[in-house]
Amino acid sequence: MIHDRPGAVPFVKGHGTGNDFVLLPDPQGRLALSPEVVAAICDRRTGVGADGVLRVVPSHLDPDGAAHADEARWFMDYRNADGSLAEMCGNGARVFGRYLVDALLAPAGEIRIGTRSGVRRLVVPPSGDVSVDMGAVAFPGPDGVGVSVGGRVWEAVAVDVGNPHAVAFVDDLADAGRLLDPPVVTPPGAFPDGVNVEFVVVRGPAHVAFRVFERGVGETWSCGTGACAVFAAARRRTPADGAGEWTVDVPGGRLRLRETAEGTVELTGPAVLVAEGELRPDWPGSR
Amino acid sequence: MIHDRPGAVPFVKGHGTGNDFVLLPDPQGRLALSPEVVAAICDRRTGVGADGVLRVVPSHLDPDGAAHADEARWFMDYRNADGSLAEMCGNGARVFGRYLVDALLAPAGEIRIGTRSGVRRLVVPPSGDVSVDMGAVAFPGPDGVGVSVGGRVWEAVAVDVGNPHAVAFVDDLADAGRLLDPPVVTPPGAFPDGVNVEFVVVRGPAHVAFRVFERGVGETWSCGTGACAVFAAARRRTPADGAGEWTVDVPGGRLRLRETAEGTVELTGPAVLVAEGELRPDWPGSR
Repeated sequence: MIHDRPGAVPFVKGHGTGNDFVLLPDPQGRLALSPEVVAAICDRRTGVGADGVLRVVPSHLDPDGAAHADEARWFMDYRNADGSLAEMCGNGARVFGRYLVDALLAPAGEIRIGTRSGVRRLVVPPSGDVSVDMGAVAFPGPDGVGVSVGGRVWEAVAVDVGNPHAVAFVDDLADAGRLLDPPVVTPPGAFPDGVNVEFVVVRGPAHVAFRVFERGVGETWSCGTGACAVFAAARRRTPADGAGEWTVDVPGGRLRLRETAEGTVELTGPAVLVAEGELRPDWPGSR
Repeated sequence: MIHDRPGAVPFVKGHGTGNDFVLLPDPQGRLALSPEVVAAICDRRTGVGADGVLRVVPSHLDPDGAAHADEARWFMDYRNADGSLAEMCGNGARVFGRYLVDALLAPAGEIRIGTRSGVRRLVVPPSGDVSVDMGAVAFPGPDGVGVSVGGRVWEAVAVDVGNPHAVAFVDDLADAGRLLDPPVVTPPGAFPDGVNVEFVVVRGPAHVAFRVFERGVGETWSCGTGACAVFAAARRRTPADGAGEWTVDVPGGRLRLRETAEGTVELTGPAVLVAEGELRPDWPGSR
């Protein structure tokens, strides 16, 4: 049982560019989310199915949220589909913001939410695309990184968006093949904690598209930090394309990115609520 | 809009051995399910996500159900995830039966439902596993069928369960590899409409396990007609294992099969309702 009373557990299903989430509203901080329950909910055949769970809890009622409760009324308790804790998810944050506004938990406009990587600023209009400030992006090195798939090798640039990325520009997104296995990244040891790998093509001025292999997950339809890494690498590669808004296409849709006056990266794109309902109280995963 | 009134569309999500479905209750026969809407609902990232849709409609209100309305009060309007019509689905029928009983649309016990391949008999206890009569199984030939994956070749037996199957006994389920591409079936032309391919291992007396590559779909976690084909082929291969109930394991769980007094095959296994809710009225797929 994940609830302090036996009964149905309300949920909302939503997605941002195909990165999908089960939101669990928890206004009284009573949900006990074990890794097993999260994994059962996220199972795409025997559960609801999602890339992750977003528990929506008042910041002062969560141990990780309490420190920022004065700045951010709501805390995004994000869990990966395998049940593990995660710090931040750009697409998830946008869906989280859309839910807050649609559920009348926050007025439309600028909203600050708590995450495990600190307070993040969202812009949530009454309808339509949602923006999230993803923080700073850096190029920490090392230089000389290579990414290899099926015997082909590309140069890659190391980008830090709070998590590590290796961004490779390719001629055709199909060059990366089926991406069933992690790309080989060289030199060995360049990324001791593993790395997310992006394959990027240029579509036009200030317009790129990419595929991503997320460490520990596989190829996904979208990756918010990956989009930030690709945006930063592409701007550095073609500075003539300007400092305005860029269009970044992912397999699951279209994102827009820009640098803010504070030097952080703002990610904008669709955040769609698909369905709402309740987990059945007699379903094994709800206990 | 898939409804005659603008608004939320109720749904239930359920699965049988990992074969999962979105049930759409339609007591007044008012849902207009275009292939596009079905595909949007079944999309695992941007929709609810499922292997197919089961519309629950009174038989007399459906053009395909009306002929059997005197025998079967409810018609299972089954659609594949791509939106195409389908005749029958054994795991879907069991989930359909569980829903009828849980929603108080039919009393527990023996229930006859309409499908596009005629009336099917279910046994739905108040709780627990559900049985469905899958009809007759035949060995229509041809002989000399071979199934090949990655250069390895196995003999296979052709089995008809209303749809065509090629059943191959292997030493290890891993021998079939990742099953990303359709197995090569020989001789060419043996199955002009394509064929579902099962790879089977013997686990013990009256106990087998299999993986399946469904034509037009790929590898799945379970296949009701595949289980019937495997059961029939395994019984013919080892008649000493008896005419009683067999255990047939699939990647998504455990099924039990037996031959009825009428010579048909009865399939029994879990049918679990996971969640219930409404498609959001403003979600693109609901319009």
